[in-house]
Amino acid sequence: MSKEVLCGVDIGGTKLSIGLVHADGKLADSITMHDHVGKEPDQIVAQTVEGIHSLLAKNSLSADNLRGIGVGTAGHLRYRDGILITMSNLRGFEGYPLRERLQQSFDAPVAVDNDANAQAFGEFKYGSGIGFENMIFMTLSTQIGSGIVLDGRLFRGMTGTAGEIGHTIVEPSTDLTCPCGNRGCLIAVASGVALPHVSRRKAASGIPSKLVGGEGFDYSTVTGELILKGIRAADPLCISIVEDFADYIGIACYNVFQIFNPQAIVLGGGLMSWGDIFFDKITARFRSLAGSMMYEDVAVRKASVGRHSGVIGAASLALEDA
Amino acid sequence: MSKEVLCGVDIGGTKLSIGLVHADGKLADSITMHDHVGKEPDQIVAQTVEGIHSLLAKNSLSADNLRGIGVGTAGHLRYRDGILITMSNLRGFEGYPLRERLQQSFDAPVAVDNDANAQAFGEFKYGSGIGFENMIFMTLSTQIGSGIVLDGRLFRGMTGTAGEIGHTIVEPSTDLTCPCGNRGCLIAVASGVALPHVSRRKAASGIPSKLVGGEGFDYSTVTGELILKGIRAADPLCISIVEDFADYIGIACYNVFQIFNPQAIVLGGGLMSWGDIFFDKITARFRSLAGSMMYEDVAVRKASVGRHSGVIGAASLALEDA
Repeated sequence: MSKEVLCGVDIGGTKLSIGLVHADGKLADSITMHDHVGKEPDQIVAQTVEGIHSLLAKNSLSADNLRGIGVGTAGHLRYRDGILITMSNLRGFEGYPLRERLQQSFDAPVAVDNDANAQAFGEFKYGSGIGFENMIFMTLSTQIGSGIVLDGRLFRGMTGTAGEIGHTIVEPSTDLTCPCGNRGCLIAVASGVALPHVSRRKAASGIPSKLVGGEGFDYSTVTGELILKGIRAADPLCISIVEDFADYIGIACYNVFQIFNPQAIVLGGGLMSWGDIFFDKITARFRSLAGSMMYEDVAVRKASVGRHSGVIGAASLALEDA
Repeated sequence: MSKEVLCGVDIGGTKLSIGLVHADGKLADSITMHDHVGKEPDQIVAQTVEGIHSLLAKNSLSADNLRGIGVGTAGHLRYRDGILITMSNLRGFEGYPLRERLQQSFDAPVAVDNDANAQAFGEFKYGSGIGFENMIFMTLSTQIGSGIVLDGRLFRGMTGTAGEIGHTIVEPSTDLTCPCGNRGCLIAVASGVALPHVSRRKAASGIPSKLVGGEGFDYSTVTGELILKGIRAADPLCISIVEDFADYIGIACYNVFQIFNPQAIVLGGGLMSWGDIFFDKITARFRSLAGSMMYEDVAVRKASVGRHSGVIGAASLALEDA
C-alpha cells in the first residue's frame, strides 16, 4: 500500500485525540484519551506513539502507510525547532522538544503547531478555505484563536506565535480582563471566558432573563451552551450578549480585512453553534464598516470541517510542505 | 555607464517629487513640483516623464542608466495591474492604468504602489528595517499609513490594499470619526486629523494651556507643529494629547505584535517629530501590554530614511523583485 494516510494528533489540556485521515480530508478512524493529564511529556509522547500504532493496526495499516504526522497542541510553539514555549493545563512542556521526540519513533515526517494554526490549515485544505490562497481563520470558543494562511502557507512570524488575533485590543477603556492580564482584547470582551462577567453586568443593568441572574445566581455557570438555550427561548439578556459579541467579532473581521485584505475569513469554534443570529450580525457589522473601502468582495464563511477539526486540522499540517 | 541608478517618483496630492537614488539608498538629486495639481492623469504622466529626463540630463545621465523606476502614490492601487482605485486630492485617477502609461515611456521596469508601502520598503532596504525579513512600518502623520514586509517582500493582499492598520478600530465607543466615516479607528483617535477634535475636548475638560483654547480659539489650527511647540513649552494640554496618542499607538504596536509576531516595528511620519516623550511612551505601553507573551524581543525603531523617504522609498520599490 502506498503512503497515503495522514495521522493527526490533537494534544489538548483535557483530551488527547488521534485520527487517521484520508488524503481527501475524510476521517478514517480516531481514538480519544483523557488519561494523559498529569503525565510527564515523555510519557505523553509514548502514549501518543502507542496510540498511533494501535489505531493503524486496528485499520490493518502500519507506520509504512503514513504519509505524515501532524500535531496540534494547546500551547505556543517555537516553530523553527518544534519546542513548546507554553502548554495550557499540561505540566512540564515548557522547553520540551515535542517534534523531535515524536519524530524519533517514526520515519514519516512529523509537523507540530498550535491547534488554531492546525484548524486554520484544515479549513484551507479541506473546508471553507478551499480555493483561497490568503485566508484568516478565527475560532470563537472559550478563548479566541486564529491562524493566518498567506500564499497557501501558514504565516507564523518570528517565534511562531503570529496569529493571536484574540489578544488584539479593541476596547481599551473596559475593565473586562483576559486571562493574560490585559483589558479589552477580543478574548476579554467576546469569548467564553467573558460570559460570566458580561452576563453579570447585563443582569445588573436590568435586562430581563429567565435563565441568567436573580438571587444567588452563580454567574460562572454562564457558558456558550446556556446562551444557546437563551437564544432558543428568545431570552433578552442572552440575545443582548450575542449581539455584543457579534459586534466585536464584526470589528475583528473588519480589522483583519484592513490589515490583510484577504480573500476569505473563516469563523469556527463552539460559539458558532449560536447560529445565524450570531453569524449574520457579525457579517453585517463587518460589511457596514468596510463599506466602500472593500474593492473586491471578501468572503466570510462558517468553518466546515466539523467536529473532528482538531485531528483533521492537525493531519493537514503534514501537507504544508507537500 | 552601467544601469545603476534608481528613480523614485512620489505623486502626492500637493506635490510631485522625482529623485535619483544610488544603489546604496543615497539621494543623488531631486526635483519637486506643485503645478501637477488640477491636471489630467495623462498630463501628470507626461510631466513626470519630462521631469525624469530633465533630472537625468542635469546629472549627465540618460534613461539607459536607470535600473528601475518606482512610484509611490497617495492612493489605493489594484496592484496586479497597476491601476489606481482611489487617489487623494487628484482628480480623474480612478481606474487609471498608471503603471502601464508610465512604462510606455521607459525600457527600465516601472513599479507602482501606494506611498506607505513605498516608505515601508524604503525603511526595509535602506533604513531602520535593514536586517529584518519581517517588519511592520507605520507612518504617523495627518493620517496613519502602514506597510507590511513579510519574508523580505511587501504583503499586499487580494486587491493590493493590505496594511491599512490606520483604519483598524481600537476604540469603538468613541464618537471621534475618521474621514472614512468610521468611528474609533487609529486615524480617528491618534493622527493629525484627530487633533482639532481631541484638543477641543481637552480644553473643555479644563486642562490648562497657553497655546490651545480660550475665547474664539480656532481648533482647526491645532496641528502636529503646534503640539510640538506645546511639548517644548511643557504645555499640559499638548502633553496630555501626546500621551493619549502614544497610548493608542502603543496599543497598535501590541496588536501588530500579536498578529504578525514580527522582528521589528518601524515608526515614521511627521508626528514622530514630537520626540522621545512620544516614542518612549509608545514603546513603554507596547512592552507593558506584551509582557511575558513576547518570547523573543521585537525591535521598535524610529524610521531613519529621513525627509526624502517619499522618493527614496518609491525608488526602493524597483528593487523588490531584484
